[in-house]
Amino acid sequence: MNALLRKDIHSITAYVPGKPMTALGGRRERAKIAKLNSNENALGASTKAQQAIKKNLSTIFRYPDGSSVSLKKALAKKLKRSAANMCLGNGSDEIIDIIIKTFLNRGEEIITAQMTFVEYEIIAQANGYKAITVPLKDFTYNLEAIRRRMTKKTKIVFIANPNNPTGSYVSHEELMRFIHRLPAHTLAVVDEAYLEYVDAPDFPRLLGYINTKNVIILRTFSKAYGLAGLRIGYAVARKEFIAAMEKIRQPFNVNFLAQVAAESVLCDTRFIAATRKETLQEKYNLYRALQALHVEFIPSQANFIMFKTPLDAVVLCQKMAERGILVRDLKQYGLDTYVRVTIGRSRENKLFLDNLKKILKR
Amino acid sequence: MNALLRKDIHSITAYVPGKPMTALGGRRERAKIAKLNSNENALGASTKAQQAIKKNLSTIFRYPDGSSVSLKKALAKKLKRSAANMCLGNGSDEIIDIIIKTFLNRGEEIITAQMTFVEYEIIAQANGYKAITVPLKDFTYNLEAIRRRMTKKTKIVFIANPNNPTGSYVSHEELMRFIHRLPAHTLAVVDEAYLEYVDAPDFPRLLGYINTKNVIILRTFSKAYGLAGLRIGYAVARKEFIAAMEKIRQPFNVNFLAQVAAESVLCDTRFIAATRKETLQEKYNLYRALQALHVEFIPSQANFIMFKTPLDAVVLCQKMAERGILVRDLKQYGLDTYVRVTIGRSRENKLFLDNLKKILKR
Repeated sequence: MNALLRKDIHSITAYVPGKPMTALGGRRERAKIAKLNSNENALGASTKAQQAIKKNLSTIFRYPDGSSVSLKKALAKKLKRSAANMCLGNGSDEIIDIIIKTFLNRGEEIITAQMTFVEYEIIAQANGYKAITVPLKDFTYNLEAIRRRMTKKTKIVFIANPNNPTGSYVSHEELMRFIHRLPAHTLAVVDEAYLEYVDAPDFPRLLGYINTKNVIILRTFSKAYGLAGLRIGYAVARKEFIAAMEKIRQPFNVNFLAQVAAESVLCDTRFIAATRKETLQEKYNLYRALQALHVEFIPSQANFIMFKTPLDAVVLCQKMAERGILVRDLKQYGLDTYVRVTIGRSRENKLFLDNLKKILKR
Repeated sequence: MNALLRKDIHSITAYVPGKPMTALGGRRERAKIAKLNSNENALGASTKAQQAIKKNLSTIFRYPDGSSVSLKKALAKKLKRSAANMCLGNGSDEIIDIIIKTFLNRGEEIITAQMTFVEYEIIAQANGYKAITVPLKDFTYNLEAIRRRMTKKTKIVFIANPNNPTGSYVSHEELMRFIHRLPAHTLAVVDEAYLEYVDAPDFPRLLGYINTKNVIILRTFSKAYGLAGLRIGYAVARKEFIAAMEKIRQPFNVNFLAQVAAESVLCDTRFIAATRKETLQEKYNLYRALQALHVEFIPSQANFIMFKTPLDAVVLCQKMAERGILVRDLKQYGLDTYVRVTIGRSRENKLFLDNLKKILKR
């Protein structure tokens, strides 16, 4: 049987997702639990998205529109770009896979940060490519160090901005300096999954550069758009890149209900504005509360906060889970005392803070 | 820019899907149109599946259960296998990609038929592997010829059974003779997408061999289960194979509503039985009608029939489309006068036959 499996299969480690609700046993009262471990939308699912799905239930037996014509048109209008600049995927995860397949030749490599969304590395490995990871500096992407590690083999640099799990970001000036200096054979893929939560005035405005620079932007409907369960993300890039990616993309990769829901929530500006407003308010409330508890944290441009406690992170997360609160330890990054908490609703954040206080006092 | 794209990107040809409903302009009366080009379920979507989705709409903002625990349990019970024998995918398309990534080393190859589901070849190429295609014999997989083409490099043989687009099948005896003689380094992947429509008594019963032979079975919810729009398929194999595939699988590859709908329709035995009964009845009606028109066809074990007319297939399909009927030409296989028609409801099949008669008489 071992003669059958790919030889390096043992070197591949799978992604470890945040625990689902069922990890809490499912018997607790809703008022006493908080799932703050997967950066999902605090407000839940947009009513418009739910209505759009209901209206389309009778045609789920048909294959989806493989070209997502209607959704691409809506996206193009919103981003003031052409439908030929968009490639849709079964979540950004699949877009990463498509990009790696579209651009890398055997022997070429990707570079990313040591402490960022782990799928860049995992998906590169699953495709048989080497991923080089470069340490952060002050919990932020170190673009200068990445530039120094680049070689002739470096085909793609993956940059999560804002970064997950730190919440930090690189500014427009820093990122553009990096992109302007990219060699002709290297591409920057900038993952803006948390863009809608950003409030830094110097955050990069990349859309204007897709036609002139070696850059691809990733966006998702899983975070502020509240559709994590439906799996839909997309890339924005120059049309020659998209045309090549469309050859690699599987014909029916984005399910029909995700297309329908994404299009409806794209126009649900009230929902997105409400999500943003409440999350930002709660972010600053959490900052103040953590400061009062003398808990160190990294200022965040996303809907989560990374913080440090004297306790072992796994122990802290377990104690929290026993109290009905799911948060995420960052052990996989070698950070033994750091934890990531999603910014939830006021009730959930209070529950988190009250219990954190109790646990730390012991 | 060309320095960025993968060097062999130009050799990859994308899949050409059947035209969507919108190809008919969308203004015709429902009674006068028939979409018979994508082998979708004639009866539409199961009511139970639709209800299950409705009940779960409010949690689409949560990530899906990446391990699909509940659905795997239901599948395991139905197939009398363990959950550890199942890997779920975003349609069988994704499962094919996962299998290729899990088993092939650089330089290894796949073999499939020249005239079969084209995704085996396309996905192998997208992953940078060579696909060898062997001609059919009497419109049926020629396992003896495939065996003769196998070399040390042959890692996987993909067999669609029943085959698409011919509707033909290989028998239990033929397939088992082939599988028994597989060398230790070669795996058979048998795609049973149309299993629920089979009525041949000597059709292979493969489930009993997954633990002892080099075989993986593919199944889907896109055909008789009526969930093509939701994208969900699965592999059944020995647990060591599945464990390796689970490492390659992306963590949230199967969307939440697909999991929920698949589980509900799995138990909707009435819906599946009604689908099967009506499709088989209509199949024999179509056989008789085609014979009366002196139209040659291949007997089918699936929910479609491949037939031959004196007309050019593209011309025939276009004339049909002008009359509101979508059928599929088989030009991509080099068959200039063959067309594939999905077995629809009685009304749709009548519409198809009436118009075929008129077109052929001219």
